[in-house]
Amino acid sequence: MLVVMNQNVSESQINEVINYVKEKGFDTHLSKGILHTIIGVVGQGQLDPRNIELIEGVNEVIKITSPYKLVSRQFQTMDTIIEVNGVKTGGDNLSVIAGPCSIESLEQMDETASELSGIGIKILRGGAFKPRTSPYAFQGLGEKGLKIMKTVCDKYKLASTCEIMDASHIDMFLDYVDVFQVGARNMQNFTLLKELGKINRPIILKRGLCSTIEEWLMSAEYIMAGGNRNVILCERGIRTFEKMTRNTLDLSAIPIVKKISHLPVIVDPSHATGLRDKVEAMSMASVACGCDGLIIEVHNNPEAALCDGAQSLYPIQFEHLISKISQIAPIVNKKFL
Amino acid sequence: MLVVMNQNVSESQINEVINYVKEKGFDTHLSKGILHTIIGVVGQGQLDPRNIELIEGVNEVIKITSPYKLVSRQFQTMDTIIEVNGVKTGGDNLSVIAGPCSIESLEQMDETASELSGIGIKILRGGAFKPRTSPYAFQGLGEKGLKIMKTVCDKYKLASTCEIMDASHIDMFLDYVDVFQVGARNMQNFTLLKELGKINRPIILKRGLCSTIEEWLMSAEYIMAGGNRNVILCERGIRTFEKMTRNTLDLSAIPIVKKISHLPVIVDPSHATGLRDKVEAMSMASVACGCDGLIIEVHNNPEAALCDGAQSLYPIQFEHLISKISQIAPIVNKKFL
Amino acid sequence: MLVVMNQNVSESQINEVINYVKEKGFDTHLSKGILHTIIGVVGQGQLDPRNIELIEGVNEVIKITSPYKLVSRQFQTMDTIIEVNGVKTGGDNLSVIAGPCSIESLEQMDETASELSGIGIKILRGGAFKPRTSPYAFQGLGEKGLKIMKTVCDKYKLASTCEIMDASHIDMFLDYVDVFQVGARNMQNFTLLKELGKINRPIILKRGLCSTIEEWLMSAEYIMAGGNRNVILCERGIRTFEKMTRNTLDLSAIPIVKKISHLPVIVDPSHATGLRDKVEAMSMASVACGCDGLIIEVHNNPEAALCDGAQSLYPIQFEHLISKISQIAPIVNKKFL
Amino acid sequence: MLVVMNQNVSESQINEVINYVKEKGFDTHLSKGILHTIIGVVGQGQLDPRNIELIEGVNEVIKITSPYKLVSRQFQTMDTIIEVNGVKTGGDNLSVIAGPCSIESLEQMDETASELSGIGIKILRGGAFKPRTSPYAFQGLGEKGLKIMKTVCDKYKLASTCEIMDASHIDMFLDYVDVFQVGARNMQNFTLLKELGKINRPIILKRGLCSTIEEWLMSAEYIMAGGNRNVILCERGIRTFEKMTRNTLDLSAIPIVKKISHLPVIVDPSHATGLRDKVEAMSMASVACGCDGLIIEVHNNPEAALCDGAQSLYPIQFEHLISKISQIAPIVNKKFL
Repeated sequence: MLVVMNQNVSESQINEVINYVKEKGFDTHLSKGILHTIIGVVGQGQLDPRNIELIEGVNEVIKITSPYKLVSRQFQTMDTIIEVNGVKTGGDNLSVIAGPCSIESLEQMDETASELSGIGIKILRGGAFKPRTSPYAFQGLGEKGLKIMKTVCDKYKLASTCEIMDASHIDMFLDYVDVFQVGARNMQNFTLLKELGKINRPIILKRGLCSTIEEWLMSAEYIMAGGNRNVILCERGIRTFEKMTRNTLDLSAIPIVKKISHLPVIVDPSHATGLRDKVEAMSMASVACGCDGLIIEVHNNPEAALCDGAQSLYPIQFEHLISKISQIAPIVNKKFL
Repeated sequence: MLVVMNQNVSESQINEVINYVKEKGFDTHLSKGILHTIIGVVGQGQLDPRNIELIEGVNEVIKITSPYKLVSRQFQTMDTIIEVNGVKTGGDNLSVIAGPCSIESLEQMDETASELSGIGIKILRGGAFKPRTSPYAFQGLGEKGLKIMKTVCDKYKLASTCEIMDASHIDMFLDYVDVFQVGARNMQNFTLLKELGKINRPIILKRGLCSTIEEWLMSAEYIMAGGNRNVILCERGIRTFEKMTRNTLDLSAIPIVKKISHLPVIVDPSHATGLRDKVEAMSMASVACGCDGLIIEVHNNPEAALCDGAQSLYPIQFEHLISKISQIAPIVNKKFL
Repeated sequence: MLVVMNQNVSESQINEVINYVKEKGFDTHLSKGILHTIIGVVGQGQLDPRNIELIEGVNEVIKITSPYKLVSRQFQTMDTIIEVNGVKTGGDNLSVIAGPCSIESLEQMDETASELSGIGIKILRGGAFKPRTSPYAFQGLGEKGLKIMKTVCDKYKLASTCEIMDASHIDMFLDYVDVFQVGARNMQNFTLLKELGKINRPIILKRGLCSTIEEWLMSAEYIMAGGNRNVILCERGIRTFEKMTRNTLDLSAIPIVKKISHLPVIVDPSHATGLRDKVEAMSMASVACGCDGLIIEVHNNPEAALCDGAQSLYPIQFEHLISKISQIAPIVNKKFL
Repeated sequence: MLVVMNQNVSESQINEVINYVKEKGFDTHLSKGILHTIIGVVGQGQLDPRNIELIEGVNEVIKITSPYKLVSRQFQTMDTIIEVNGVKTGGDNLSVIAGPCSIESLEQMDETASELSGIGIKILRGGAFKPRTSPYAFQGLGEKGLKIMKTVCDKYKLASTCEIMDASHIDMFLDYVDVFQVGARNMQNFTLLKELGKINRPIILKRGLCSTIEEWLMSAEYIMAGGNRNVILCERGIRTFEKMTRNTLDLSAIPIVKKISHLPVIVDPSHATGLRDKVEAMSMASVACGCDGLIIEVHNNPEAALCDGAQSLYPIQFEHLISKISQIAPIVNKKFL
């Protein structure tokens, strides 16, 4: 931490800062420049920079230690690669997860799984507990949905991905689900994150609608600090003033996260755009800027979907998308399917 | 719902929309204008407007039914007034809740409560479970903290307000806490909201950092739909591009919410600004534009606070703030203390 | 400027930074901590921190010199007070400017001016050149409007405020207008700002819709650097994701700007909210948190207004607002009317 | 325009709306539903929806006519293709403009042009008038810079692109510049836009930092309404809460604009990200989602650049980028170089 003092700072003001910081158990390092006097603060423990900012004579307090440890490339240089059902995510691998927004019935899941399996997909997505803005909207089938998911995955030899909304559901999920997904609205549900740190399953951690990249990585840090290092980050759009898309897909986050973290990053173009006819273009863009995977909504009959049908692809559209991605993957040195 | 068709729309395109909507069990109402053909859609049930937007010939789909019911002034004209420990919030009453960010020790709480009680405060705030961005930061004392809170509240005849982070804690909280607070990061933790709908205690529902007013009201709707009508909304700042404040306090939300909802709205200027020296100014502004209450961080010794000390007022500053607010309250026709 | 190096930085990387910076004519100051090596950079001139960030081994580059000079309280401790037509803005004075959005006709301006003059207003606002999103919307009366403004101001002994949209209009404005207003969309029209620095009239500088406080102050710096020190800052709302208000009025900006700058700050609640029935509440909030003035849209007949009638007050509403503000002003130690 | 009335609306309230609207010269069309009474409003002229919203009994007013005409695909179905120096932008063509941020000297421009020309670039960019946040930063060489640009372009048979900051510079620019660029900060400098509508040169219109897609298209409409139909839209990032990138590149805007407008859309990944090492990834993503061109900063010696060197590519990096884009272009059916 660096404390930058005002230009006309007095000795007693400098001493006040030094005394305050030392009382908290930190060491200081004074450096007087022509324009600025700077007090370096070194040590372990908690120190709220705003407390120092409020001391008379202080211009600014600057944190210089990055807050994440386990997620950082300084901690682990090599890319984390997570393998699920023979599919690798991370490193020079590109993976695709697909399936409907919600699990609605055995028939729907069976038909969708059959189509996707035929295209080569190995990980099926589908929600059983749905975070809906309105209490009057379809809330998902619950455990019954998870059972349908498991039946279908067993039949087609697929792995499953479902969103978990509450820590109390973890035990239930362990019986049915291979990859746990934390939704954007729960990215800072710290109780949930801590409990997910205690299990072994891979966790897809979606970025919150208004979360900075730093906060997103800190939420991954929560899971990793608990012992579970199988975290896959997922960019799904952030909230801005633009009204023509559901959210603004922040693709610059991909090369940025790849530089500072070793964790794999995938993209959800379906939720980001909210409209089926934008999904292919944004999937291609995601792969072109280096993402490690995609999670895409596909429904056997989107018009009949109980939730988010408008952003779900028809299987035939999805097949077209896969062929397009296959062409881009080698250009960015990614192995695909 | 209104479906606005393109200017050069064909009969078959119009029919496609009508058929789609009727299949879903809704009625339609066709109106052909000079510039636009509009199809009104009436009925009960779920209908995702985006599915219609994807039909050829459709220009736009407009939702016209407001999504909230119980929170709306159309449902209840009279202001909801919530009384806790003899203090009313809502209607022509102005209330103030105060206390430290975190419960740290019996001494800290006792001293702070003693000061606040002397100033006339009847509801004490303090966190036992803290949502912290970093897993390495102080996470609160947990149940031990709740016990301290109860001991102190009993001694000084205060009611207590604590943040609840997970549905599994509700039973524990019922033993100690009078007013449950849902933090900004949990505003869309729907599992938690549903469970809070089943209890009887007043709920302070903070607005999420990137939540629209509509989403905030829908989260209140979740609690009310469960049967608990004691909801107090709390504006605490939204996230914008501005970097000089922790968040941007959206005070326009106050007159807006007061117009469309009967629920009381309070303001948390401490979290919004993040710095002690801005709290008085923003408290006064909040009262001047019609809020029903304030929740303010006060600490007996802010420099020693384990969390957010920089935004906590000294008791003497708080007393000054109270005297200022007392002067503004009658101008906006609010009874205070 | 401070260059924070990575933890595992090498000597040669440190030297590369030092050499780069010295070549640019700056001095360095090396400080090796346990966790971090920091290179202080001191000197005059241009140095883009991003160039240093791209050097191998650099973790972060931190600017510590605040970019504004003339607008800063470090440059001038005392509040700037600007007097127009006997009305002072700044210091312990509270001023109110009022008038319609657009100058539409002599009758409209005369009637409005007569009403406002009766209420005690001394500065009349009204636009002759209107920045409209659509080329097909009413663009203002141009110079004819300015003439109407002058006629009316002469009759009622008022000063005038009009928005200037282009540097080429300055000479024309000098003939008719007492206070020049720079609109939000032109806050970074640097050609205009430079030319306004060469004249002597007071400038109301509105904050841009997506401008940070720092950028706003830098635009004031442009005007002041040219020699014109009569700058009044005007907060008018920023753009966020919230859709229920036209913009989000950022009232926290008031105490923040008052702390770092000596310039007066006023608020435009009419444009920020966009709806008449929110103007009084937000005006009161603005005064309560310490603004130095208000600029409010009032129209003799809002229903007939050619532009923004919906946010214009009726004269009788404005009179009510003035009486409310008179009650708040003394509480915040402001002299009013 | 549609006026949605409250559920419990009275006949007299309905009549008040109808009378108000008819007085303004519009026709109405009443439709009473079970839940809602809706008044359709048809006609030509100006009608501010907010005036109607303020009438008692009105729930909401909905605009249904899209505000743009000439830029819309409803006005022109075929893609606009703009040819400059033999290079086509729009349709199935992909173009690249390159060059330094600022024109600094004849040597710098000559060397850079020589490099770019060798790579096959036909349009050179470079700024002579620079919009800088600080009045103390390098402001560009002005007309001297334009002369250097012309000399170099003549020598290497290149077309030139320069940013124009003020309408008064148009005549000067006509002597030197082939493609005029309007910067993000001037996107709503309506005086400038109107004057650019009167000339014949192609205009690159950058999206404002906080502009919606609708506003961006309306600014293009300003230019086209004046008679100049050679408009190229340029996405360059919007402002959000994210701090790790200079701006957030909104690539979803590409497929959206391509759907509603016939104008070509290019991307500026240099300004959006602000850092050289992100430019290639974001260029590839831009092409992959269907942009019609790129404008990229390249400098013969980025370390020595007077402005934005950190986001400028070395010529050798640019050559690599070009080869990558050549591989992606055919996948999205674009002809390139």
